[in-house]
Amino acid sequence: MRQNTLLSTTLREAPADAEVISHQWMLRAGFIRQLAAGIYTYLPLGWRVLRKVEQIVREEMDRAGAQEMLMPAMQPTELWKESGRYAVYGPELIRLHDRHEREFALGPTHEEVITKLVSGEISSYRRLPVTLYQIQTKFRDERRPRFGLLRGREFLMKDAYSFDADWAGLDQTYWKMYDAYQRIFNRCALKYRPVEADAGAIGGEGGTHEFMALADIGEDTIAVCPHCEYAANIEKAVAGAVAGTGTGIGIGTGTVPQTPGSLTVEQEDLAQEQEKIHTPGIRTIDQLVQALGVEANEIIKTLIYTADGQAIAVLVRGDHEVNEIKVKNVLSVENLEIANAEVVAKATGAPVGFVGPVGLTIPVFMDRGVADMSRGIAGANEQDYHIRNVQPKRDLSLEHIGDFRNVVEGDICPRCEEGSLQFYRGIEVGHVFKLGTKYSEKLGARFLDASGSEQVMIMGCYGIGVSRILSAIVEQNQDEQGIIWPMALAPFQVHVIPVSLKDEIQMKTAEELYQRLVDCGIEVLLDDRDERPGVKFKDSDLIGIPIRIVVGKHAAEGNVEFKERARAEQKIMKLEDAFSCVVELVKASRVQKSL
Amino acid sequence: MRQNTLLSTTLREAPADAEVISHQWMLRAGFIRQLAAGIYTYLPLGWRVLRKVEQIVREEMDRAGAQEMLMPAMQPTELWKESGRYAVYGPELIRLHDRHEREFALGPTHEEVITKLVSGEISSYRRLPVTLYQIQTKFRDERRPRFGLLRGREFLMKDAYSFDADWAGLDQTYWKMYDAYQRIFNRCALKYRPVEADAGAIGGEGGTHEFMALADIGEDTIAVCPHCEYAANIEKAVAGAVAGTGTGIGIGTGTVPQTPGSLTVEQEDLAQEQEKIHTPGIRTIDQLVQALGVEANEIIKTLIYTADGQAIAVLVRGDHEVNEIKVKNVLSVENLEIANAEVVAKATGAPVGFVGPVGLTIPVFMDRGVADMSRGIAGANEQDYHIRNVQPKRDLSLEHIGDFRNVVEGDICPRCEEGSLQFYRGIEVGHVFKLGTKYSEKLGARFLDASGSEQVMIMGCYGIGVSRILSAIVEQNQDEQGIIWPMALAPFQVHVIPVSLKDEIQMKTAEELYQRLVDCGIEVLLDDRDERPGVKFKDSDLIGIPIRIVVGKHAAEGNVEFKERARAEQKIMKLEDAFSCVVELVKASRVQKSL
Repeated sequence: MRQNTLLSTTLREAPADAEVISHQWMLRAGFIRQLAAGIYTYLPLGWRVLRKVEQIVREEMDRAGAQEMLMPAMQPTELWKESGRYAVYGPELIRLHDRHEREFALGPTHEEVITKLVSGEISSYRRLPVTLYQIQTKFRDERRPRFGLLRGREFLMKDAYSFDADWAGLDQTYWKMYDAYQRIFNRCALKYRPVEADAGAIGGEGGTHEFMALADIGEDTIAVCPHCEYAANIEKAVAGAVAGTGTGIGIGTGTVPQTPGSLTVEQEDLAQEQEKIHTPGIRTIDQLVQALGVEANEIIKTLIYTADGQAIAVLVRGDHEVNEIKVKNVLSVENLEIANAEVVAKATGAPVGFVGPVGLTIPVFMDRGVADMSRGIAGANEQDYHIRNVQPKRDLSLEHIGDFRNVVEGDICPRCEEGSLQFYRGIEVGHVFKLGTKYSEKLGARFLDASGSEQVMIMGCYGIGVSRILSAIVEQNQDEQGIIWPMALAPFQVHVIPVSLKDEIQMKTAEELYQRLVDCGIEVLLDDRDERPGVKFKDSDLIGIPIRIVVGKHAAEGNVEFKERARAEQKIMKLEDAFSCVVELVKASRVQKSL
Repeated sequence: MRQNTLLSTTLREAPADAEVISHQWMLRAGFIRQLAAGIYTYLPLGWRVLRKVEQIVREEMDRAGAQEMLMPAMQPTELWKESGRYAVYGPELIRLHDRHEREFALGPTHEEVITKLVSGEISSYRRLPVTLYQIQTKFRDERRPRFGLLRGREFLMKDAYSFDADWAGLDQTYWKMYDAYQRIFNRCALKYRPVEADAGAIGGEGGTHEFMALADIGEDTIAVCPHCEYAANIEKAVAGAVAGTGTGIGIGTGTVPQTPGSLTVEQEDLAQEQEKIHTPGIRTIDQLVQALGVEANEIIKTLIYTADGQAIAVLVRGDHEVNEIKVKNVLSVENLEIANAEVVAKATGAPVGFVGPVGLTIPVFMDRGVADMSRGIAGANEQDYHIRNVQPKRDLSLEHIGDFRNVVEGDICPRCEEGSLQFYRGIEVGHVFKLGTKYSEKLGARFLDASGSEQVMIMGCYGIGVSRILSAIVEQNQDEQGIIWPMALAPFQVHVIPVSLKDEIQMKTAEELYQRLVDCGIEVLLDDRDERPGVKFKDSDLIGIPIRIVVGKHAAEGNVEFKERARAEQKIMKLEDAFSCVVELVKASRVQKSL
């Protein structure tokens, strides 16, 4: 391809609203352009990268035995009502009416459509299992589209859906997809971690993994054990050791979990009385720490929530955060929201900031970290007062103890119980999920088993954010000059730059090299623009093609300058050697593909 | 691919609303499924064919120097207001609002988006010309979606847009695209004709061609000269010879076009007086023909229209039909509608059915066919009366004479003036169009020319109905048993069918053959279903894979049955020979690709 007519203008500056580096570089290097908030055009350079990701995804899906197809973007909302998602999906679901006033949704995912379809196509166990996928534009009206392709409203996604005859079958399919995902992200040269994620009410233990590209700007926090292979989204991660297994939840059983001896409540402590203290205007943990000269971990934080309309209290240590997903899962509720002042006052008699667990009549859910405290400071349920020496074991209901907090860095790994968890930020680029019968039950995807009795299909779903991978790759592969594309995804593999269009030898050498490389099936961008060399080199670094061959003043002696974008050194070498180096490097990347 | 788990169920019958054969076969053979009116899912078989069409389109677009990219489906309607299409596009444009009540349209085409984009990227003549394309899902809320993929509301389209510095450049680009289209449709093995089409107010002569796949169910009529290369959509086709050149239009000039001597009005005719005749309840041409015992071509048909609000009359011969597009173009109006009874009465004083040209005070547009009549019967502008012996040259205003009718079969070709036009039905699968400055003017796509002065870019647009091609191909390639895919588009190239799953030799032979062909890069469907042979053969004919190899009772002697779907004969041959035949046939189709 000749750069002069390539529709790709490099920009000196990125617009002010491009907050993250991948967004800035992709705009500046001419890969994407914004049409509206969260809605982007892929210019030829960006589209070439996207096609490469798409192709890798396709090859690995096919290799895993999945079948490609294409479902419509416009989905009748009747289907969404049937699945029950119509009511809960909220404004992210883009709705529209056709000329006959029939309502449609623009598909953010396709569980409903595929389940309905398969229910009409498959009726016997002999046709199972089957995994179907598509690579398609999806629509999601994000409240805050941002970070370029990372959180868009219209984006390219690979979504796959599996149908198995039983759970054991789903398990096999699930790990087959998991493996395919690893191959895909490896081939994309992405630095990533598969992490355990929250599966909500369905899926069960190990029922879902997210594939997280590691990047500081990631919107997810993941907890990783450096000692074993444990890695989990903070939504899901649990702390080990200190609080016992961290998974057995004592809710509703009335039993008090065993606590390690080192932290048991001592006898003399039990003798200490509660003491009401005057804390005028002191509402937050920070203020308490300041005012009383204590540590945050000596405070019991009490939060009032409404859980499907009912007021409850959740207690965590002052230095911990409530993990609402864990609370929701234990309660099996749809909606969990922090209560407003009115609800708080009604439930506790106190204004926000002075709420405490002592004497509460609403259900109290106590994190293990609180149960393990010998004593603590809590709100007094009275304006401007707190209480010292609240002893959970003595003063509070121990009926609902469990894991209700986010892990913090340094928590013990729940798997090996040796390593201390470390935190990373991640961009979710893939997600595998055991759906079970959630959709097949509601949309009637049934089949007859070998004995002729009717069963519900067991489903899984598997997503990859195809366009999002571009952002993740750029976040991980860039420097102060621009993008550094890995060979497998680069829009072109080689950038041939003649320094002077007026120099006949340079142009002839460049043109011949260009043609020779193209004839070998190598993708080459030839900078045939009438620009100053400085501009050309700057643009070249910005665009980030892996290999650059400059045909300049040494061309007269048959030499060119060879440089890899990822390396600093630039070598002057014989044209022939440069050609061989290119072929070698491109070939190496192809070997990786077939592994 | 193994057929047992292929998501493709064959159906005994097509739904009653599948009116055309391509729709029926594609449903029955398991290529597509309807999700809503005009909205289809492509099952794996259908998707494979679609991908092949897509790939052919992509290769030929790239070969023609066009650059692939991807624009969003969601377009801010501000852009449509800027171009002026928002008001005129009507309910086919699907509109929606995002969560902030901003209005978007789902792109039916992308002239606005691309023009705006290019206006921001290109500012110098040195970066022109450039042609950009995308292969993308489009949305159009058809009033009557029907015929399966032929008239859908969500469909796959290739749309390309070119930007040139001048009209000569556009001309070059236009014909380059025209050639690419021919290669594409040839490679798809489509029987088609490029035809001249109406370009409306812009584009000028030769400014647009449609590529019509020939099929009886086509919604377009095309007029073709068997003597020369002339072919035109009936919207555009003109008749030659009889009415002179057929292109010079005498509107507003007051000149009477020359008419060939053989048809001039003779002197004695001029002496014949108009004669009012009583025709109670006789309103239509057919009724007049019946009641008066005349031929339709002896009648002058008078139609009253409102043209942008103004009443006008159009006269054509009784056996001709008004071509409203021609009238619209001559008048340069946006809206042309047949007038309602009220308007007719006001303009002519007569009820519908008795309107005639004599004495009319509104502008009268006379088709040449009428001007060439020596005399005719027309309405008398009075209830239940007509007039005989209306002599256009004597009795009517000749101010606006032109070509205002559809050609009819047998009309003389306007190009060679020798052949008689023949009619065919066609499915529009492609369209190339000179847009000129329509969008670049309004959306500000300007550049500086070599002398530094600002110019408006000259645009062209080029569409291909990718999904529609499937229907066209099936219409042209099917028999009573099902579809007959051409090799280039077939979902699989070879269908290997072991007759009995229980026969070890058959299964071993079939599996080995399957693997060997797959290893050669050939696409094979292996029917590993536990079905009766009759069912397998029937499904095979229905699906229409070009080559079928049945591994049956002859397998023990190392023989298989070889059959091409397009041929009746079935040969028993050595396995090795069958293998060679397949390789040969597949190779032949690949040679065609590189031509």
